Amino acid sequence: MTEQQLHRVKAQHTAGQLGQMIDGTLFGNADKLVTGANAIESAGPDDITFVAEDRHLTRLKNCNAGVVLLCADHTKLVMESNPNFVVIGVKDPQLAFQTILPLYRKVRGRQAREISPAAYISPSAKLGKDCYVGPGASIGDDVVLGDNCEVHPGVVIGPGCRLGRDVVLYPNVVLYHDVEVGDRAIIHAGAVIGADGFGYRYEEGRFEKVAQLGSVQIHVDVEIGACATVDRGAIGPTVIGAGTKLDNLVQVAHNCQIGRHNVFAAQVGMAGSSSTGDYVRLGGQAGIKDHIHLGTGCMVGAASGVHRDVPAGETWIGFPASPEQEQKRLVFTLKRVPEMREDLRELKKQVAMLTQQLASLQEMKAAG
Amino acid sequence: MTEQQLHRVKAQHTAGQLGQMIDGTLFGNADKLVTGANAIESAGPDDITFVAEDRHLTRLKNCNAGVVLLCADHTKLVMESNPNFVVIGVKDPQLAFQTILPLYRKVRGRQAREISPAAYISPSAKLGKDCYVGPGASIGDDVVLGDNCEVHPGVVIGPGCRLGRDVVLYPNVVLYHDVEVGDRAIIHAGAVIGADGFGYRYEEGRFEKVAQLGSVQIHVDVEIGACATVDRGAIGPTVIGAGTKLDNLVQVAHNCQIGRHNVFAAQVGMAGSSSTGDYVRLGGQAGIKDHIHLGTGCMVGAASGVHRDVPAGETWIGFPASPEQEQKRLVFTLKRVPEMREDLRELKKQVAMLTQQLASLQEMKAAG
Amino acid sequence: MTEQQLHRVKAQHTAGQLGQMIDGTLFGNADKLVTGANAIESAGPDDITFVAEDRHLTRLKNCNAGVVLLCADHTKLVMESNPNFVVIGVKDPQLAFQTILPLYRKVRGRQAREISPAAYISPSAKLGKDCYVGPGASIGDDVVLGDNCEVHPGVVIGPGCRLGRDVVLYPNVVLYHDVEVGDRAIIHAGAVIGADGFGYRYEEGRFEKVAQLGSVQIHVDVEIGACATVDRGAIGPTVIGAGTKLDNLVQVAHNCQIGRHNVFAAQVGMAGSSSTGDYVRLGGQAGIKDHIHLGTGCMVGAASGVHRDVPAGETWIGFPASPEQEQKRLVFTLKRVPEMREDLRELKKQVAMLTQQLASLQEMKAAG
Repeated sequence: MTEQQLHRVKAQHTAGQLGQMIDGTLFGNADKLVTGANAIESAGPDDITFVAEDRHLTRLKNCNAGVVLLCADHTKLVMESNPNFVVIGVKDPQLAFQTILPLYRKVRGRQAREISPAAYISPSAKLGKDCYVGPGASIGDDVVLGDNCEVHPGVVIGPGCRLGRDVVLYPNVVLYHDVEVGDRAIIHAGAVIGADGFGYRYEEGRFEKVAQLGSVQIHVDVEIGACATVDRGAIGPTVIGAGTKLDNLVQVAHNCQIGRHNVFAAQVGMAGSSSTGDYVRLGGQAGIKDHIHLGTGCMVGAASGVHRDVPAGETWIGFPASPEQEQKRLVFTLKRVPEMREDLRELKKQVAMLTQQLASLQEMKAAG
Repeated sequence: MTEQQLHRVKAQHTAGQLGQMIDGTLFGNADKLVTGANAIESAGPDDITFVAEDRHLTRLKNCNAGVVLLCADHTKLVMESNPNFVVIGVKDPQLAFQTILPLYRKVRGRQAREISPAAYISPSAKLGKDCYVGPGASIGDDVVLGDNCEVHPGVVIGPGCRLGRDVVLYPNVVLYHDVEVGDRAIIHAGAVIGADGFGYRYEEGRFEKVAQLGSVQIHVDVEIGACATVDRGAIGPTVIGAGTKLDNLVQVAHNCQIGRHNVFAAQVGMAGSSSTGDYVRLGGQAGIKDHIHLGTGCMVGAASGVHRDVPAGETWIGFPASPEQEQKRLVFTLKRVPEMREDLRELKKQVAMLTQQLASLQEMKAAG
Repeated sequence: MTEQQLHRVKAQHTAGQLGQMIDGTLFGNADKLVTGANAIESAGPDDITFVAEDRHLTRLKNCNAGVVLLCADHTKLVMESNPNFVVIGVKDPQLAFQTILPLYRKVRGRQAREISPAAYISPSAKLGKDCYVGPGASIGDDVVLGDNCEVHPGVVIGPGCRLGRDVVLYPNVVLYHDVEVGDRAIIHAGAVIGADGFGYRYEEGRFEKVAQLGSVQIHVDVEIGACATVDRGAIGPTVIGAGTKLDNLVQVAHNCQIGRHNVFAAQVGMAGSSSTGDYVRLGGQAGIKDHIHLGTGCMVGAASGVHRDVPAGETWIGFPASPEQEQKRLVFTLKRVPEMREDLRELKKQVAMLTQQLASLQEMKAAG
């Protein structure tokens, strides 16, 4: 393996310069040269790093960074325990780090706005201004693209699809026919939107396909992960609400109605006709039964299996999932079962002994 | 987001006309105009909807549809409680609705039967009559396609594959070399058939690849979901039996022998050399251990993990999976554990008290 | 379905010839003609098969093979119970079978080393000697390919990627920009390497994308399954260590640091910033929480959910996962809960009776 890291670039700024850029308060040597930016564990003595949350402060113990971005509240504490750090206090260390990081990273510019001659574009398709269409992409009949869209190599857009402006379709994305995609949506490589929902009728020993005549609506500002799948509805559209983010390999079955600003981690599965309110968050590999509703603002833990509606605002975990407190109590108690079994055994002995003793007392009484 | 729904078309039929089309018995205003067809929850006053199963009848309470398709048995009951509906009684409401729905939906016609000049087709490949091959598709050496196949854009068919007639490969499907696909099979976008099975030998600190020299046989009338993966066998073929339906993101490992008319929901994983009889149904995210056999007609619940053979006809759920009744009893009893723990605590107190009382009785006795 | 099996070829060798090839000791008819090679269950009377592990010896009971490869230790035992077999004893039956199997299988030769005119290759890309680039493949700006790479049809390699020598990218693989791939790595169809990690900041009611400025490093001898996804890091690279094998549909989130010679079965999910030592093995569908470390040589069972660091060398199973022995004890005890509940009920009765009897004794005493 080559030792180079392709995403890094050589750059050099003083701690003072960096502090100014992000409007921070610097403690220590302002002339300290910073040649890289890295996460806590991988930062070296000439690197800048950051701590965004209190719970990560302990990770600074073994941190070799030269400069550390911190919340203003933490600067004093950290300087006392790690006097070697140059410290910069800011309001929002993660945001400040995001401002600095691009100085030390190769950032790919905007894809050139050109239509590859090796792309196939139907004569009836209409492209907005400043679109990119890569080699091997295929744009079907009657497709409409807004301005400034990126259609990367190997993307296939089925007939009748309508895309807003600033949509990005990464390589090999597939949109089946008549899918709608809102402005600024990003769909990652290999995702498939609008395949037939999984619907069959059992007839005389075989499964007959039920025509899937709905479509898919991806609203504005949605991001969909690599190799995720969103099926078209059977009757009406499958909907992904505005601002919602789906991670890689997520499955959204036909007729699902996903609300706005949801966040589904990787490998989540939503069964058919399930729905969510806004701001719903699902942990990785969670599975949701068909026709279930997840209320606004609720959370479901990773790998949980939800079989009932989840009320708004609640956090559910486990399999079958139930409210977090209930589930934690249950798990806690179940761990006590071996001990309970011991207790039970002991009690049985004691009761047997008591019974015997009592019997002999009664006998004596009777005899007495 | 645009308000239009791309899958709808404007159409207008009277309830009486629709009733005749599906040979139904109409109750109420036969002249009622119907301008759309929708599911119960989204149907408006000019829409027709349907209820196929008894358990969904309660959903009619808040239904705004103008016309409702019902089983003949349900018409009276529904008309009494919802006198506003125009009701049409039929034998099979789902099937009747499927007849009507296309009147109100954009239904894409058959893909034009043409070979794109932007496709790559090996000179040694043989295509049947009336095939469609889209731009960017690649058909390898010695491939044989039956009549009337659809090979959508970006599909890659490896050398030596043999497809029956009326096979549909949606965009970006990949068939590795020497895969067989039966008549009328449908493979959705991004699915990968015939990649190497996951087989290695551990030798001197590293994993050496075991050549995967079998292939894959997809039998007639199979449907495979988007981004599903079916690996080629190590020695013999991996087999997907006739009429079987695999949903999106399903994994079938090398050497699996899947029977006929199986139905696997999304994200199911079958480990190597597992097998099934006919009519097996697996819920979403279920996982099956390697070398396990699932008997004909058995069912496995969603997200269950199967570690042992499942006898024909049984329903298994849970992790590790066991027969449904057993598992339900177990879950029910486990929920009682906190209460058992209370009981146990109480009993311990009582027994301690009894022991003490008995001791003092015995003492008194001895003293007496 | 056609009856032919595309992966088989007609061939004919005597048992004696085969035995010589693999340096084995033959018992029985050395002139026995062998026309096929198959697994135990599917082998016919003219086929050779093998048994590699003791636990599979019982499967020979119903085996119809003509010739069986065995460990030298097993030959005597097997010949006594199955006198019809011609038996060949060798040191390593699996390896010996792998030597013989290609005689009876169609083995596809090396892909011809040619650059398809239907591929898109950026003028700034540099290809090593003897590379194959298939039709519809797309190689971006500044890409560097080592000698003897295979870039199959529909593959998309983003700008700035660097590949070692003998790398194989199967059809429709996508590498985002600036990904590094080591020598001899194999990436199967539809896999996506280097998509943006799933990182957002919640700001004023919406999720804002956090730029993902790291990349991905795939080290030498890695194999990655079909439709697997490995996201690019947020700050530094996501790393897949040398010799590691990922099965189909595996998800590796941003910033993960996977060690060397790991083996992850299908549908495993590694959440962000999780890491592993060397020789870690994960069962299918296992899920690993973010920021968790799995120690060198540890194992995690199929479908297990890991929430805490796993120490080196341990085997963990279950959800939430814990050491195998602990988990097995727990599962065993939990199965006893219904019986415990019976016991508890019985004890309550007995204690109630004892209490009553004691009370009457005390009353008598008092009265006495």
